[in-house]
Amino acid sequence: MNSTTEFPDYLIEYGEQIDALRELGYTYWQRGWSRGTSSNYSVVVSRDPLQLVITASGKDKGRLSREDFVLVDAAGKKVHAEAPASSAETLLHCVAAECIPDVGAVLHTHSPWSTVLSQRYFAAGGIELHDYEMLKGLRGVSSHQEAVWLPIFDNTQDIPALAEQVRQRFTSAEEPLTHAYLIRQHGIYTWGRDLAEAARHIEVLEFLLECLGRSAAIA
Amino acid sequence: MNSTTEFPDYLIEYGEQIDALRELGYTYWQRGWSRGTSSNYSVVVSRDPLQLVITASGKDKGRLSREDFVLVDAAGKKVHAEAPASSAETLLHCVAAECIPDVGAVLHTHSPWSTVLSQRYFAAGGIELHDYEMLKGLRGVSSHQEAVWLPIFDNTQDIPALAEQVRQRFTSAEEPLTHAYLIRQHGIYTWGRDLAEAARHIEVLEFLLECLGRSAAIA
Amino acid sequence: MNSTTEFPDYLIEYGEQIDALRELGYTYWQRGWSRGTSSNYSVVVSRDPLQLVITASGKDKGRLSREDFVLVDAAGKKVHAEAPASSAETLLHCVAAECIPDVGAVLHTHSPWSTVLSQRYFAAGGIELHDYEMLKGLRGVSSHQEAVWLPIFDNTQDIPALAEQVRQRFTSAEEPLTHAYLIRQHGIYTWGRDLAEAARHIEVLEFLLECLGRSAAIA
Amino acid sequence: MNSTTEFPDYLIEYGEQIDALRELGYTYWQRGWSRGTSSNYSVVVSRDPLQLVITASGKDKGRLSREDFVLVDAAGKKVHAEAPASSAETLLHCVAAECIPDVGAVLHTHSPWSTVLSQRYFAAGGIELHDYEMLKGLRGVSSHQEAVWLPIFDNTQDIPALAEQVRQRFTSAEEPLTHAYLIRQHGIYTWGRDLAEAARHIEVLEFLLECLGRSAAIA
Repeated sequence: MNSTTEFPDYLIEYGEQIDALRELGYTYWQRGWSRGTSSNYSVVVSRDPLQLVITASGKDKGRLSREDFVLVDAAGKKVHAEAPASSAETLLHCVAAECIPDVGAVLHTHSPWSTVLSQRYFAAGGIELHDYEMLKGLRGVSSHQEAVWLPIFDNTQDIPALAEQVRQRFTSAEEPLTHAYLIRQHGIYTWGRDLAEAARHIEVLEFLLECLGRSAAIA
Repeated sequence: MNSTTEFPDYLIEYGEQIDALRELGYTYWQRGWSRGTSSNYSVVVSRDPLQLVITASGKDKGRLSREDFVLVDAAGKKVHAEAPASSAETLLHCVAAECIPDVGAVLHTHSPWSTVLSQRYFAAGGIELHDYEMLKGLRGVSSHQEAVWLPIFDNTQDIPALAEQVRQRFTSAEEPLTHAYLIRQHGIYTWGRDLAEAARHIEVLEFLLECLGRSAAIA
Repeated sequence: MNSTTEFPDYLIEYGEQIDALRELGYTYWQRGWSRGTSSNYSVVVSRDPLQLVITASGKDKGRLSREDFVLVDAAGKKVHAEAPASSAETLLHCVAAECIPDVGAVLHTHSPWSTVLSQRYFAAGGIELHDYEMLKGLRGVSSHQEAVWLPIFDNTQDIPALAEQVRQRFTSAEEPLTHAYLIRQHGIYTWGRDLAEAARHIEVLEFLLECLGRSAAIA
Repeated sequence: MNSTTEFPDYLIEYGEQIDALRELGYTYWQRGWSRGTSSNYSVVVSRDPLQLVITASGKDKGRLSREDFVLVDAAGKKVHAEAPASSAETLLHCVAAECIPDVGAVLHTHSPWSTVLSQRYFAAGGIELHDYEMLKGLRGVSSHQEAVWLPIFDNTQDIPALAEQVRQRFTSAEEPLTHAYLIRQHGIYTWGRDLAEAARHIEVLEFLLECLGRSAAIA
C-alpha cells in the first residue's frame, strides 16, 4: 500500500475500519478483483441512525489513502460536506445494511469470472451453487448439500432503481436474497456481520465462480 | 503474515512447527489453494502417544496467528481444554498419521483445480497420473513411467465415517493409498515424513492437477 | 524493484515521473504484461516543444533503473546524445502525444490476452467492447451501453510506416481512434491525460480482454 | 527468500552469480515454473577448463540457500567432494555450454504450459513459433516474421543418452538447435550469453507457450 496519509478529522474515529478496508482493497486489486478503480467497500459504523463508511468514488483500490472514504447516511448522502463524493453505488450498500439487521460490512468486487458468468447465466436469472464443500464458508450453510442461489440483476446506470429492485428481493417471501447477488457484467455484492465475514464471503464466492468457470472451460 | 502474536503456554514447545505452518498457510492462501478459511494442516509432534498439532477450526489461512492451533490425540480430541476447537476434519489427519508409521505432517488444500477435477473424475473412482516428470517429486517415485493413482472419496459431513473409509484404504492390500487422495469437490489430502516433504507433495500434486485441467481445456 | 540508482543529470528534473514509471513497470512485469523486455512507457514532460520521457530500448521492465529512460522530441529523436537508445516504438508514443492535445502519458503493454485476441480479431479489423460496466473506467464513457472500438493494426518492423497509419486514424473523421488500439500479436497502446489515467486505461482494457478471452474459453 | 546463509568456502568466489540464481529461483517458484523442487539453473564460471555452477539436486527453488549449489566440470562431475550432489540433469547444462561457445548460463523451467504443450506437440516433433512480436526477445531474431523451431525430445531417466541426443542436434547441419528445446512432459531448456539473456529467453518462451495454450483454449 502507499505510504500512510493522515485521516481527515471527520474520519479519525473510524481509522481502524478504514485501514482494514485499505488492506482489503490492496489484496483484491492484486488478485484482479478490483482493477481500474472498480469495486467499492463499506462498513456499518452506526445503526441508529444508520451510517456507513464507504469508499469514495473513482479511487484506485490498489492505493487507497486515508482520505478516500466517506461517511454516509441511510439514504446514501454524505454526512460531511467537505468529504469527497461517495461511490456511485452507495445506495446498494445502504439497502443491504438496512434490509439485514445484523449486517456490519458490504463488499462489491468486480472480477473477470463474476463478470463473465453473470452474462452467461443472466438468461437463467441466476446461478445455483451446490455440492461444493466451500459453500460451508457462507454464513449459516452447514452442509455442501445445501443449494445457494445467486440472483443476477440486469446492469443499469440508474442506481436508485436498481437499489429498489434489490430491496424488494431482500424482503421477498418467495425468493429472498440470502448471501449475495450479481449484477450483469458488473460483478458481485455480498455482506457479513462484520468485515471478516464479508471478506470470507467474497473469497468463497470468487472461488466458487472460478470453479464454475474452469468447469465450463473443460466441459 | 499478520504481526506476531504470543504462543499460548501449551503450544510454546511446538513454536517452530507452528510458525512453519503459518508461513505455508499464507503461501497457499496467496495462491488460491486455501481461501475462505478452507484447508487444514498438521504436524505429528509425538508418536507414543500419537499427538498432532493442527490448525483450529474456521481460521483464515492467510492470517493464522500463533493461537490458531490445537494439540490433539490419536482420536482427534484436543489435549488442552482451553484450546480452540480443532478443524472439523481433524480425524482425517489422525488416520493418515496412524496408518503410515513415518508420517510427520499432513496437508489438505482446497484449490479450484482439485475441486473441479475431483468432480470430473469422481465417476471413474480416481485420477491416474503417469508420464509426467513431476511425478518424481512424490516420495519413492523414481521414474515418470510409474503411474500414481489418486482415489476420490465422496464428500460427506460425516467425518468419522469418511475417516473409516480412508483407514480401510490405507490398510487395503489390493488398492492401498500411496501418496494422496481427493475428496469430491473438496480438495486434496497428502502427507510426508516431515513438513517439507508434505509441502513438496502438495506442490507436485497441485501442479499435476493444473496440467490435467489445462490439457482438458485445450483438448 | 532493484536498489535505487542515481539519475543521470539530464533526467533529474523528471525524477518523480520516472520513479512512477519504474513502479508501474514492476507491477506490469509481475502480472505478465511486460515480460522479456517487452512494453514501453512514456510521460509527456513538455508541450512546446513536445518532449517525452520514455523507456530506453530493451530494458527488463521488472528492474528498470533510473538510467533506463530517455528524453525525446516530437520526432522521437533523443535530446541528449549520451542517453541510451529509446524504445524502437518511440514514434508511436510521439504520435499519440501529438495527435491528442491533452495526452500526458502513453502506455504499451504486451500481455498474453492482448496478443492472442489481436490475432483472433485481426480479420475483423478490431474488437468492439460493449455492455461491460468496466468500460466506464475509460475516459468519457458514462454508461456500459456505449460501445468502444479497439482497432487492430497489422504488426510490422517498419515503425515509421505504422506511426503514419496510426496518425491517420487519429485524425480520421469516420473512424477516429478514441481510447486505445492493438497491434497484431504485439499488444495494446493506450494513453491518458496523466499517468494515473493512462494506467487506469491499461487496467480497464486488460480486464476487458481477459473477460473476452475467458468468455471464448467457455463458449 | 529465506534468511541469508553463508557460502561454503569452495563457492565464495561465485557468490554474486549464486545470489542471482537464488533470486531467479524464487521468482520462478512464485510463478509456478519451478514447483516441487523441479527445474535447475547454471552459470558458466570458467571456459578453460569448462566449469559451471549449478543447483544441487532436489532443492526447493523457492528457498535456495547459498549451500545449494555445486561446481561441476565438463563431464558434469562435481569438483569438490564435499559439495552436495548436483542436479540429475547436470549433463544437459554441460552439453549446452560445450556446444555453444559463448553460452554463459543455462536455465531449465518446468511450467504447466511447457509440460502440457510438450505433450500436445510431441508427435509433431516440435513447436514452430512465428508472427509473434515477442520472438524478437530471442537473441538474433530481428523480426516477428522469422520462425523459431522448438524441438521436443522424449522424456527419459537416462540423462547421458538424452544429453547425447541433444549434442547431436546442437551440431546438426540440417536441423540445428537455435534457442531452446522442450522435453516431453518435463519442461523447457534455454541458454544465453549471460544470465540476463538466458532469463530473458525463459520469459519470452514461457510467454509464447502461454499464448499458444490460451489460443488453443479459445479455438
